Amino acid sequence: MINPVTDLPSTPLPRFATARAIAQAVRAGHRSAVSVIQDTFSNMRAVDPALNCVTHMLEQDALEQAARIDCARQAGAPLPPLAGVPFGVKDLFDIAGHVTTAGSKVLRHAPCARQDAAIVQRLKAAGAIPVAKLNMDEFAYGFATDNAHYGVTRNPHDPTRMAGGSSGGSAAAVAAGVLPFTLGSDTNGSIRVPAALCGTWGIKPTFGRLPRDGAYPFSASLDVVGSFAGTLDDLIDTFHIMDGVASDDAPAEPDAASLRVARLGGWFASSLSPALTTLIEQVCTRLNVTQTVDLPHTASARAASFLITAAEGGNLHLPRLRQQADDYDPATRDRFLAGAMLASSTYLQAQRFRSWFHARIHQIFEQVDVLIAPAVMCEAPLLDDPTILVDGKPVAARANLGLYTQPLTLAGVPVLAAPLLQTHTLPLGLQLVAAPGQESALFSIARKLEREGVLGTMPIPTPEYA
Amino acid sequence: MINPVTDLPSTPLPRFATARAIAQAVRAGHRSAVSVIQDTFSNMRAVDPALNCVTHMLEQDALEQAARIDCARQAGAPLPPLAGVPFGVKDLFDIAGHVTTAGSKVLRHAPCARQDAAIVQRLKAAGAIPVAKLNMDEFAYGFATDNAHYGVTRNPHDPTRMAGGSSGGSAAAVAAGVLPFTLGSDTNGSIRVPAALCGTWGIKPTFGRLPRDGAYPFSASLDVVGSFAGTLDDLIDTFHIMDGVASDDAPAEPDAASLRVARLGGWFASSLSPALTTLIEQVCTRLNVTQTVDLPHTASARAASFLITAAEGGNLHLPRLRQQADDYDPATRDRFLAGAMLASSTYLQAQRFRSWFHARIHQIFEQVDVLIAPAVMCEAPLLDDPTILVDGKPVAARANLGLYTQPLTLAGVPVLAAPLLQTHTLPLGLQLVAAPGQESALFSIARKLEREGVLGTMPIPTPEYA
Repeated sequence: MINPVTDLPSTPLPRFATARAIAQAVRAGHRSAVSVIQDTFSNMRAVDPALNCVTHMLEQDALEQAARIDCARQAGAPLPPLAGVPFGVKDLFDIAGHVTTAGSKVLRHAPCARQDAAIVQRLKAAGAIPVAKLNMDEFAYGFATDNAHYGVTRNPHDPTRMAGGSSGGSAAAVAAGVLPFTLGSDTNGSIRVPAALCGTWGIKPTFGRLPRDGAYPFSASLDVVGSFAGTLDDLIDTFHIMDGVASDDAPAEPDAASLRVARLGGWFASSLSPALTTLIEQVCTRLNVTQTVDLPHTASARAASFLITAAEGGNLHLPRLRQQADDYDPATRDRFLAGAMLASSTYLQAQRFRSWFHARIHQIFEQVDVLIAPAVMCEAPLLDDPTILVDGKPVAARANLGLYTQPLTLAGVPVLAAPLLQTHTLPLGLQLVAAPGQESALFSIARKLEREGVLGTMPIPTPEYA
Repeated sequence: MINPVTDLPSTPLPRFATARAIAQAVRAGHRSAVSVIQDTFSNMRAVDPALNCVTHMLEQDALEQAARIDCARQAGAPLPPLAGVPFGVKDLFDIAGHVTTAGSKVLRHAPCARQDAAIVQRLKAAGAIPVAKLNMDEFAYGFATDNAHYGVTRNPHDPTRMAGGSSGGSAAAVAAGVLPFTLGSDTNGSIRVPAALCGTWGIKPTFGRLPRDGAYPFSASLDVVGSFAGTLDDLIDTFHIMDGVASDDAPAEPDAASLRVARLGGWFASSLSPALTTLIEQVCTRLNVTQTVDLPHTASARAASFLITAAEGGNLHLPRLRQQADDYDPATRDRFLAGAMLASSTYLQAQRFRSWFHARIHQIFEQVDVLIAPAVMCEAPLLDDPTILVDGKPVAARANLGLYTQPLTLAGVPVLAAPLLQTHTLPLGLQLVAAPGQESALFSIARKLEREGVLGTMPIPTPEYA
């Protein structure tokens, strides 16, 4: 396990410093916000050539905000809870004064955003400082963060492997220890897949819980904004701030012992790597889980997510595709065009299935509080052999890494992506799933498993980029 | 103006007896509920051969319910407000124990409904007695009530003319004075168009206000259930019962003098017949209306209604069309098939326009309380020359009678269809339109115009079927 850096030396800001530690150091005057930001850029510049997480640095804005925090502190003003803490945003979040490119050159000449995205506003009001926009699949359509314009983001645990996507830059920046937390978005698994492959914590909150204003859309029926963090404490602290709740007012977490936990079987037990099978068994033993739950018609749920995403994404992009199709990443372009041409009856059938599926999921959560499922079936695929095994057969990783995340997308439920502590060298991740609005149940179970040494971030080897 | 029959003789129940008069006579013991129902069937049988309003008589059920009411009264039990009042339902409302055919032979062999539709339950709980299912366009897709299986419904004011649709049987049964009120549904104008052509009162309530359970669906995004009545009092009384409100608890109607009334111009002032132009001017003069309001992008609003209806109807029927396309009315079948094949991007664009249009309508209703518009541009077309003039050119009536109703459908606003009192021989109708949930404003303005002799039902000539 990585020892998150919670006791900051006065030497340059180390990698893996936590948000809590940075905020504490700034509040106590042990370190200026400006120095935190300067060192964060140094760390990013040291790491990014090898990993390619960053699409845009926000250095001037960040230093100005940091200077204001330092002035406020010198004037004796009380500092907000995240004062001086740097964070990064997936390239689809608006930052005032900058163009939101959403991982595409299509939007290069769009006007600058006039205000920050809603959750960025909340985090800045809490003192956190956006320092960079981070790489993603073009328009968030992919599980690879392999971008025709900005290049591919590499996995910090092994740069010859995929970081996962579409929020891969956000996951990799946290996993490499250069940012304590980052923002992402998840339509079909775009937070959960890279969190699992990079071995970070990630949260896809309940559909509709966090405001999406100022996040470039993909599929209005499914898009959710959320975050990554290097520690569970930082993930939870920043979640409450994004949720608009002061830390003192955060809802109490239920006692983990009182929660009914079950394991998702069937679809979610197929195609698992042997290592992940063993680890999930261990988690279930630790929690005394005996019950297995099957979701109904999981294959249809995954298909419905695919179809709704394609149709809504296609509708959104059709006017631009008519004007500048050649500027799109070919893999994105062709799927948007196909989605726009889907028959309306197919789209509507997917939406009707979604309503039915919602009702079934609600029934399941009358009997159970938290469900355990794998996030991705195996470790991060190699970039030069991007395949995974599904039902024993090699298939394209890019299209299939969402096997376990897509069906849950359709249900709109909150999912915590949690890194498994293990002796295997590459990260593997869990999904902890609760009923809509019940994020606090996820936090409770995750804290218990973290305390018991089952969940946590793993050390990265010391590679040449470190 | 028809004098609604409010003082019932002891002779057979006359046509045009009001719901209030029947309920009063039954409550006072002047007339048994069984005799009311028996006479209602006599009246229906006398009139229906000429008009073809009815698809299914519910005689046995109705007489049993009437007998229970008479027993209750003899036992001294208090009677509910509509005890003994007969009504009819459009053929798409479930009546327990009967097949809901929705104007189609496709559903002939469907299982019987297990319970009454929700608003039928509410009316029966208030003592009203369903006596018949009434003709409609197949699956509610039309403005003509011209049904390949059940034949065409004719206009009581002139049986050589259209009754309008799709709830034409419901409008004609009220206009002919054989039922005091009836139920219909309105997706693109299916209550408002036949109310206007047959010269009855009709209400399309706010989208989502009345429960649709047990009403055979057409377009989930647009379907609204509502009613027709021969008097405004009966329309309002029965609306409150369908709305689940006891008459004592009905919301107070605002003072008509306090309401800001404007006229819809532009789209809604084009293609009007000279007679209707004059009558609307007179209404506006009577209400001191000086303001004219234009809805934005009305043509797009109408197109969006068309597209959403076609796509959602097509999706609903596609499985049955794959099995038994030949059983459908050809005009319905071909439009459903075309709707199912609409591109998803077209459907989604229509839904996105709808969201935008909703927001604009809300802005308008910050300045105005009630809008006045025509319901249909002219009198009922002849059945053997079913054309109307739009922009001075003859076009097919069936596709264009909804010119003024369809754009308002998209906004989800409540609309009262009101018959104009006039010397012209055939009915002409208004739409009174309010903000969502503000039906009581419509009732207030309509009562004022009724008191002043501007609105009301007109006499029907004494034709051979009378």
